[in-house]
Amino acid sequence: MAATNVVLGIDLGGTQTKIGFVKKDGEVLAWDVFPSLADKDFVHFVNQLSEKFQALQKNIKEEIVIKGIGLGAPNANFYTGNMEKAVNFQWGETVPLVKSIEKVLGCQVVVTNDANLVAIGEQEYGVGKGMKNFIVLTLGTGVGSGFIVNGELLLGHDGMAGEMGHVNVNPNGRLCNCGSKGCLETYASVTGIKRTVFKLLADMKRASQLRDYSYNELTGKMIAEAALEGDPIAMRAFEYTGEILGTKLADAGAYFSPEAIILAGGLTKAGDLLLIPTKKSMEKRIFQAFRGKIKLMISDMGQKYDGVLGAAALAWRHFG
Amino acid sequence: MAATNVVLGIDLGGTQTKIGFVKKDGEVLAWDVFPSLADKDFVHFVNQLSEKFQALQKNIKEEIVIKGIGLGAPNANFYTGNMEKAVNFQWGETVPLVKSIEKVLGCQVVVTNDANLVAIGEQEYGVGKGMKNFIVLTLGTGVGSGFIVNGELLLGHDGMAGEMGHVNVNPNGRLCNCGSKGCLETYASVTGIKRTVFKLLADMKRASQLRDYSYNELTGKMIAEAALEGDPIAMRAFEYTGEILGTKLADAGAYFSPEAIILAGGLTKAGDLLLIPTKKSMEKRIFQAFRGKIKLMISDMGQKYDGVLGAAALAWRHFG
Repeated sequence: MAATNVVLGIDLGGTQTKIGFVKKDGEVLAWDVFPSLADKDFVHFVNQLSEKFQALQKNIKEEIVIKGIGLGAPNANFYTGNMEKAVNFQWGETVPLVKSIEKVLGCQVVVTNDANLVAIGEQEYGVGKGMKNFIVLTLGTGVGSGFIVNGELLLGHDGMAGEMGHVNVNPNGRLCNCGSKGCLETYASVTGIKRTVFKLLADMKRASQLRDYSYNELTGKMIAEAALEGDPIAMRAFEYTGEILGTKLADAGAYFSPEAIILAGGLTKAGDLLLIPTKKSMEKRIFQAFRGKIKLMISDMGQKYDGVLGAAALAWRHFG
Repeated sequence: MAATNVVLGIDLGGTQTKIGFVKKDGEVLAWDVFPSLADKDFVHFVNQLSEKFQALQKNIKEEIVIKGIGLGAPNANFYTGNMEKAVNFQWGETVPLVKSIEKVLGCQVVVTNDANLVAIGEQEYGVGKGMKNFIVLTLGTGVGSGFIVNGELLLGHDGMAGEMGHVNVNPNGRLCNCGSKGCLETYASVTGIKRTVFKLLADMKRASQLRDYSYNELTGKMIAEAALEGDPIAMRAFEYTGEILGTKLADAGAYFSPEAIILAGGLTKAGDLLLIPTKKSMEKRIFQAFRGKIKLMISDMGQKYDGVLGAAALAWRHFG
């Protein structure tokens, strides 16, 4: 029997790392997840990755040929192969991901940042399949974004293009992790909608079940559940989030003329609560030439595999 | 002697059309300008173009081979070859530019919109030479924009990407020609700064030489001259324009990670009056990863040839 060609996809996150051997058609032959140890030395991560890599290979019954490795990580730079100034990692200012992993695992490695991975995954295995121009926004703790332009990932001059989480909503707005004020991710993320709820609890007088929770207790899921039950503060919070997100999607539409904008991440679990006001605002604010033309979709990939599949798709593209 | 290879560049504007035979290195062998007759039938334009084309050829002493024709026009679509819904032309909803001109002139034709032309011209013959990722903004009566991404013109799904004139500055802001409110071009254009001056004349009490002119009399040049003489209203108008423009350039920087943003068009004649507040605002509002990294430049191509050279560069790219 002929050996099966596979790639290894690695989704390196601030908390955990997912790895998986993936066939060209997206079938995951074996996968695992382990702590990234972002607060320890980088060498611990590399050693652990090496162990898991060996163990995973043994789990696969059929004979495999590893064509290459794709890796996504925060602030990973496609051009240099390094992770640069990733604030949640104690691995140093510049971490030589490609060089180190190639040395230890003995395969060629390609990297990009984690939000770009999701875009590549959508293009290869998700709702973006067959599209040559689309945008993926991951609305989680923060906002990540990846842009597919003319079939290719948008990298820009320095490999770091597509930072839509940090476009300006309000120059005098909420303080952002990046040090600036009023960035999109301070509004249109799980953290953003929590901040919106707390602003509304202060501004409005209406009764709300959300008045019983502290800032640290409140989760995005609670806000969505309250909105579904008709809680006025929670409902208004989704409307407000959608208005702001839609306005920035209108801008993105005018820049890129995408076939679709795909939303992913925790906040999208609220479904129509988010989608309806976002679409309404986007259509109202977009340049007339694009009105009614850009599909607004929610990713169907699920969060279990999405990063691994994206990393695998990147590897297939480069080494397949 | 061997024949000289040339292309014809056509810059079709709402008022006039410029055409020129251009060598690969950008040398213009012969050129002419004539009224576009946008308020007459399209057939008049085509006939006139044909006459000028014949006459221009006769003016050239050396033997030439015409490799193809590049054409830029408002709302011209690269994919369809048509001009679509161009509001300042009475030539119909959909004008078959490529088909008609190929038939009459007997050469292959490629089109794109006029703002994209300027970007291609900059890349081939201007300050964008050698750059693979940059943005050109033309700040004239309105705002046009062209994006070069990974060496290629950004066209998007429908061929009309890059409408930065219509990104949102203020959802409750100034009424725009496009029917929306608060688009960038209502602020960061020659018309925009006029509107700003009139707002400031209303809001502020300071004496100003601009209080002597009607809205219809006032020109961008007068505002620039007044600012250079220290007129407080005129100076504040440039600051305000720069603040708004800089904020949107910061967004564009976060989306595209360009090597440079090149400003062109009438408003840039004011030089540092515009450039200094724009750069200050852009650097203040941009995501930290890009701070200090994106060159803000003023085009040096001049307006005499820029559209023709851009159209020629487009033709060379496709037929050279």
